[in-house]
Amino acid sequence: MGGLSELFFWYALVGTAVFAISGALLALRKGMDVVGVSFIAVVTGVGGGTVRDLLLGDTPVHWVREPLDIAVCIACAVVACALNRWLLGRRMDWLLYADAAGLALFAVLGAAKAEQASAHWLVAVLLGAMSATFGGIIRDIVCGERPILFAKELYITPALLGGAVFVALPGPLGFDLRALCGLAAALVLRLVAIRLSLSLPFPRYRAPLDE
Amino acid sequence: MGGLSELFFWYALVGTAVFAISGALLALRKGMDVVGVSFIAVVTGVGGGTVRDLLLGDTPVHWVREPLDIAVCIACAVVACALNRWLLGRRMDWLLYADAAGLALFAVLGAAKAEQASAHWLVAVLLGAMSATFGGIIRDIVCGERPILFAKELYITPALLGGAVFVALPGPLGFDLRALCGLAAALVLRLVAIRLSLSLPFPRYRAPLDE
Amino acid sequence: MGGLSELFFWYALVGTAVFAISGALLALRKGMDVVGVSFIAVVTGVGGGTVRDLLLGDTPVHWVREPLDIAVCIACAVVACALNRWLLGRRMDWLLYADAAGLALFAVLGAAKAEQASAHWLVAVLLGAMSATFGGIIRDIVCGERPILFAKELYITPALLGGAVFVALPGPLGFDLRALCGLAAALVLRLVAIRLSLSLPFPRYRAPLDE
Repeated sequence: MGGLSELFFWYALVGTAVFAISGALLALRKGMDVVGVSFIAVVTGVGGGTVRDLLLGDTPVHWVREPLDIAVCIACAVVACALNRWLLGRRMDWLLYADAAGLALFAVLGAAKAEQASAHWLVAVLLGAMSATFGGIIRDIVCGERPILFAKELYITPALLGGAVFVALPGPLGFDLRALCGLAAALVLRLVAIRLSLSLPFPRYRAPLDE
Repeated sequence: MGGLSELFFWYALVGTAVFAISGALLALRKGMDVVGVSFIAVVTGVGGGTVRDLLLGDTPVHWVREPLDIAVCIACAVVACALNRWLLGRRMDWLLYADAAGLALFAVLGAAKAEQASAHWLVAVLLGAMSATFGGIIRDIVCGERPILFAKELYITPALLGGAVFVALPGPLGFDLRALCGLAAALVLRLVAIRLSLSLPFPRYRAPLDE
Repeated sequence: MGGLSELFFWYALVGTAVFAISGALLALRKGMDVVGVSFIAVVTGVGGGTVRDLLLGDTPVHWVREPLDIAVCIACAVVACALNRWLLGRRMDWLLYADAAGLALFAVLGAAKAEQASAHWLVAVLLGAMSATFGGIIRDIVCGERPILFAKELYITPALLGGAVFVALPGPLGFDLRALCGLAAALVLRLVAIRLSLSLPFPRYRAPLDE
């Protein structure tokens, strides 16, 4: 996280927390106990960043030396368990919006970290999208859910857009401005996609699926 | 495995073998041939330790340079195939107990290895539990089973307890004594949980699950 | 890819493309959009090699510095989307044969790379088979399909054979000759297995499976 600004340190923590909450809520719905819920929260919260660090060879992965992320994930899981009955009665819209914020942020952070490791721009954009989506993919697979990748609304596309905007903006603009623009682009596209049920054209088969 | 004592070297091998057998039995039940059964046995036996090594950046992972673990896994798979019909008629209790021994051991070994890599104690405990559970998680996911994480009896909790006891005991007690205490704590809790169907409170939803 | 010959560089690219196409076709069948199809194509195309690089500690993984593989995967995905309706009406035999070619190649390349990292021969053969099969395993798991490991025809066995032939042949024969022999052995066994529905004996349970 060396060259990343203070602002983004806190934002990354918020993103981790949001993903941890999404993992905790799914684990609760699957009937896990508080330890299991915390375990899934940690795996979801740090999963995307862990995949990014492993692929870039930046090991030990970031949360081995700085356990703050882990502590935040566990705290989120405990709160989610405590609020479980209350949360059940509410609409989950705010979570969907928070998840969008986490998606946007990790896409930009992932692209930034890959750029620092002198990855090609195409790889940087892709690694950003992987950072942003793999936490949720691991969460869904471990919990036996259909991966969120299959959501009808745009999900990978906003992550790619955020990373692409960050990478495309010239270095002299400064890290913060580039990151904010990437973040805004990803967030806006994801929120608009949720609101308007935006999706790219599906080149579907007409034949019935065999599963 | 540098600083780990001779005793634990052998114990780790037993733990690997036990997990390999659990993988082989599941693959057999899924109708795989002897090569597939061996492949699943290897993945299950070394999976947890591999995840631990990758996260800590201790690569090449441990079994690349010391293929003994791999050979043990394959031998277990072959034996499991040969005994398949005989095993079918028996109760699997002994395997459940052996799995508990593997869980306890890998939890302590994982925590110890993380401690050696100067990880924070919270991370060491978590990495121990990951070492102890990820072999089984990968086994279940690759075989299309519901992950053992969703077992009703305590499963992650004993692994966390074992690592926590190890980490909490002061260094001057010596590695062996700390490890044996952690091991005993994890093993006893897991066995008691199996016997008494112990579980933590589940903060369940009342609404019917949508899956 | 240092010591690998020019011929194998191109062959590896073809193997990546073939696996990418198999991922794209599955993602299309699952109703994903063009971005999702590309994402799955990339994950499938580079997945096996990525697992190999991570286990050997050869990071950043190969496609971070050389984005050609990624570009090829995306191109394959776009072509698969464009040809989707046309492909639907055709038999997929050619894809099965191409997949066999990819399997054979990655098995040999994986074994060769492990050998270069001075892995034990048993590990080299196993890592070759993991390179050859994990792309498909990740593809199937992320897409919610039954892993191809459970295919009735020999699948892991040809991959192991290819790596074993490569490793068994003495070094003085030269890299190219050893690799071609391994490649041919794996390819022939896989193609014969597909043609004749060859399978190893299954030590099945007689009791009905509980899933």
